[in-house]
Amino acid sequence: YLNIQRLNHGARVACVVKDNAYGIGAVDVAKAAVEVGCQSFFVAYPEEAVALRKEIPTVNIYSLQGLSSNNLEIIKNYNITPVISTLEEFYFWKQANISEIKPAIQVETGLNRMGFRPNELAALSENEKNMFSLCMSHLACSDTPEHPLNKKQLSRFMEINKMFGKLPLSLSASKGAELGEEYQCDLLRIGAHLYGINLEGIKNNSLKQVLSVFAPVLQLTDLNVGDSVSYDATYVATEKRKIAIVGIGYGDGLFRSLSCGKGVFYHNGKKAPILGKVCMDATVCDVTDIPELKEGDLIEVLGNNNTADDMAQQAGTIAYDIISRFGKSGRFKRNLIK
Amino acid sequence: YLNIQRLNHGARVACVVKDNAYGIGAVDVAKAAVEVGCQSFFVAYPEEAVALRKEIPTVNIYSLQGLSSNNLEIIKNYNITPVISTLEEFYFWKQANISEIKPAIQVETGLNRMGFRPNELAALSENEKNMFSLCMSHLACSDTPEHPLNKKQLSRFMEINKMFGKLPLSLSASKGAELGEEYQCDLLRIGAHLYGINLEGIKNNSLKQVLSVFAPVLQLTDLNVGDSVSYDATYVATEKRKIAIVGIGYGDGLFRSLSCGKGVFYHNGKKAPILGKVCMDATVCDVTDIPELKEGDLIEVLGNNNTADDMAQQAGTIAYDIISRFGKSGRFKRNLIK
Repeated sequence: YLNIQRLNHGARVACVVKDNAYGIGAVDVAKAAVEVGCQSFFVAYPEEAVALRKEIPTVNIYSLQGLSSNNLEIIKNYNITPVISTLEEFYFWKQANISEIKPAIQVETGLNRMGFRPNELAALSENEKNMFSLCMSHLACSDTPEHPLNKKQLSRFMEINKMFGKLPLSLSASKGAELGEEYQCDLLRIGAHLYGINLEGIKNNSLKQVLSVFAPVLQLTDLNVGDSVSYDATYVATEKRKIAIVGIGYGDGLFRSLSCGKGVFYHNGKKAPILGKVCMDATVCDVTDIPELKEGDLIEVLGNNNTADDMAQQAGTIAYDIISRFGKSGRFKRNLIK
Repeated sequence: YLNIQRLNHGARVACVVKDNAYGIGAVDVAKAAVEVGCQSFFVAYPEEAVALRKEIPTVNIYSLQGLSSNNLEIIKNYNITPVISTLEEFYFWKQANISEIKPAIQVETGLNRMGFRPNELAALSENEKNMFSLCMSHLACSDTPEHPLNKKQLSRFMEINKMFGKLPLSLSASKGAELGEEYQCDLLRIGAHLYGINLEGIKNNSLKQVLSVFAPVLQLTDLNVGDSVSYDATYVATEKRKIAIVGIGYGDGLFRSLSCGKGVFYHNGKKAPILGKVCMDATVCDVTDIPELKEGDLIEVLGNNNTADDMAQQAGTIAYDIISRFGKSGRFKRNLIK
């Protein structure tokens, strides 16, 4: 958190802890961030804020997916700031008489997801425009600095903000912050960089991936020539191999698209390529070149040798997806490193 | 369950409820199955059996990934039958003095996952061979009836079983049962078919998919020519379209590989193709042809129009993976239909 703040002079840094902090553990992340001075957090739904609020009583918690009759009580009781994205939501907020909570407004500038469109903005009275505490939007192409939509979104955002006077502004998440100071505005909403993902291009190696996932070796055995591995027998040994059956599978969040050599585990820095298809509870890998590996040892599924960004590339997805999915498994023992 | 039993004359049908019954809810599934006569259940880990045992006190619960010092107490206290796959596990069981629980033995016949290899079988004394209650193995290629490995595994399994005398046998899961009576043995381990997946080729349409997933429409809006959708602006409208922002994303278990038109939602039987990239908490779809759709309506993500098998094909995975992943999301309200 502190390194992110150093990279982004001026803008305040909010932590995005939706989806249980992308699987990492929202309460743990929030407590650690508050200790080093973080004052603002973003969740997707008010329900996600309940456990958080008990641990971080005085900071701002924004809920990105607004408010409705289903969660109004939570918004009130836990002092959550809703991000309002439609006129209907805004009118609902007005008649709910919770003026002590000034909502954020999300405006649409090019992502075409949630947010006020121009015709909806035009429907707000001058008085109503003063009812918000923050104006935000979200970039579509911040991973591609040269994409013309970035500048278009920035200029639309600045144009819209003129109608709100001096409202604090929030446009960018992790990669958006890298586009330059004009994209950083007043409040950055940092998720990925906080969790050590999407780090390509970060200055001076100042942010590091620190997340590891390990799984136990259930059984070590040998393959003879002609032996096949796992479902549909996609791998057939052409020479003697030593294999490990590892106690992790897609039921634990390991992507099946890592099957058949696309993915790799590590032990002592040595590669153990995945053989055959990833199963629900187990995955087989080639450990011929790791003679020291024993049954019961932990093998590195994710870590410094194979980061979430690396695994995402192997699996054909993004690192957010990798860690969010692992985070859903109830089987991991979590160790927080301080 | 009863329809599966009718399809498989003779063999008893055990329910595989590992991974929380592939995401469906293990306790709910087990209670319903016991009501119609099921006497045997399989979980992956003893820890999974604890909540089950309280609801189904008298039936057999097998734990596929054996026993260790970590879970011996659970095995004993909750009367779980461990499936033993290595000599080490077997010796551990012997010295643990829990002879009132006769374990199952898993033998390796061609999947090259967990199971006793020939040299390990040879190490068992005659007396030790009488200590088991069930002999099991697992097919690698049951989805492909003509694959030569099926017959090879069957004949290896029958050969191995000679050494155990009259031990009850279990070889097949859902698709294996379809390969013929000789594959059905004494006990079938049925998961997929129980949950309405992998149904292609089932006789007389006697098994049906009954699982649905719905997600709310958060916002309806229009796209003008040139407007792009979601991250990286992969979809650009070439004519006016109406879109829905739907409150489900990969954080809820929706595969990102359904992005960019690969996947489709439904409403009133009409298609709403996914536009652009699936986000963590939201997905955009084209609802131009569904004028009756309103904000707040539920849209069909999975159901009779788009089964887990259909979605698996769209996403490039298997239906097990689809439902296991949805099952991990804490955000769905579960409705059990009886």
